[in-house]
Amino acid sequence: MLRSCTAGLRSIWALRGRREGAPRLSMDLQPARRLFSTEKVIHKDWALPNPSWSKDLKLLFDQFMKKCEDGSWERLPSYKRRSTQESEDFKTYFLGSALQTQSLWKKAQLFTRGFEDGLGFEYVIFKNNDEKRTVCLFQGGPYLQGVPGLLHGGAMATMIDIALGSCTGGAVMTANLNINFKRPVPLCSVVVINSQLDKLEGRKLFLSCNVRSVDEKTLYSEATGLFIKLDPEKSST
Amino acid sequence: MLRSCTAGLRSIWALRGRREGAPRLSMDLQPARRLFSTEKVIHKDWALPNPSWSKDLKLLFDQFMKKCEDGSWERLPSYKRRSTQESEDFKTYFLGSALQTQSLWKKAQLFTRGFEDGLGFEYVIFKNNDEKRTVCLFQGGPYLQGVPGLLHGGAMATMIDIALGSCTGGAVMTANLNINFKRPVPLCSVVVINSQLDKLEGRKLFLSCNVRSVDEKTLYSEATGLFIKLDPEKSST
Repeated sequence: MLRSCTAGLRSIWALRGRREGAPRLSMDLQPARRLFSTEKVIHKDWALPNPSWSKDLKLLFDQFMKKCEDGSWERLPSYKRRSTQESEDFKTYFLGSALQTQSLWKKAQLFTRGFEDGLGFEYVIFKNNDEKRTVCLFQGGPYLQGVPGLLHGGAMATMIDIALGSCTGGAVMTANLNINFKRPVPLCSVVVINSQLDKLEGRKLFLSCNVRSVDEKTLYSEATGLFIKLDPEKSST
Repeated sequence: MLRSCTAGLRSIWALRGRREGAPRLSMDLQPARRLFSTEKVIHKDWALPNPSWSKDLKLLFDQFMKKCEDGSWERLPSYKRRSTQESEDFKTYFLGSALQTQSLWKKAQLFTRGFEDGLGFEYVIFKNNDEKRTVCLFQGGPYLQGVPGLLHGGAMATMIDIALGSCTGGAVMTANLNINFKRPVPLCSVVVINSQLDKLEGRKLFLSCNVRSVDEKTLYSEATGLFIKLDPEKSST
């Protein structure tokens, strides 16, 4: 079991783990495709514009898509689920003999892609591999409310976790998140999360980010993160 | 506008802000009630068992309900929305003249109550006022997945934010969250978040919590939080 798990993680490692819930690498803009003949799920890429996106979000998306043309930036696709094999590899790695087969698990999907269009997390991440940094464009919908009229701090923390993780370029786990909330984010507004890899020490990755308004005048949050690279030679159990 | 806002926040203050999305104080177990004749929404209390709750969660719930009988503990109800007036007060306080009236806002609801029963955040918080601490019983559903088979770090951060906030006893905003993720949480399992108020300095509240398995043997996370009491005499804009 460990050997197959290790092989699976090596495969995940090779994919550089940079696409959330990603079944396979894909740089095209096809909204959906079928991966394996045994899979019934058609994987839709959710990091593309939909009618709920505001003018600000669409405009920024177009600007970054232009930056992708010379290859310096790339858009990271985003899926609700990983492929079945990858999912099993991860479960075995983390849960080992304690692996459960609850029926609820069959419904499992990525946290940030669980809401209908426009109601929850609308976002896309662009990555600059040479500069080891990413830019996440995020519009938090009405189902992400905390104090009335404002984005929930937990929703912001979630996007910060994802944005920092997108800089890691590998299969990783979050070990520490330290977030300073400077100003509350109005619900349904667009923010820009700039993340970067600051330092690499063995399997430890030290990252930081800031969250700003589209015009960059308002600093909403600053955060640091410590992520640990998973060791494909070892199970965590 | 400021005066009415101030009056509104005083009222919120008086309610001690301890119930998420709470329209008014309520200690009974009525699942739903109508507050104002002008309101069309019937406020359902979501911090009560539903068929998706696991045996572990129900058992812990029953244990804490027993502790409530002598008044040392209380169950905190939880609603998707605050009353219309409170919502308007908050929006005015935070957003002032920049208050927007986007149609999406009409759908606004508490982040952690946006999923169908069992798919997202299933939780209930019990509070011990004398000891300035709370216990949050949390079952993270299949729509909160991060790495396959595991709870998303952002979902855990969200619950930590809410659990710490439940100790504050006032209208507050999160200023800092510092979370150490020790071990990943299996999806659909139940965890217990013990939170406490460590120190109060003026408007600053310093809090801490830990997240453990039901049998207390596994420490999943530890966190500290700094929350700031809102000043009802001032608008934030």
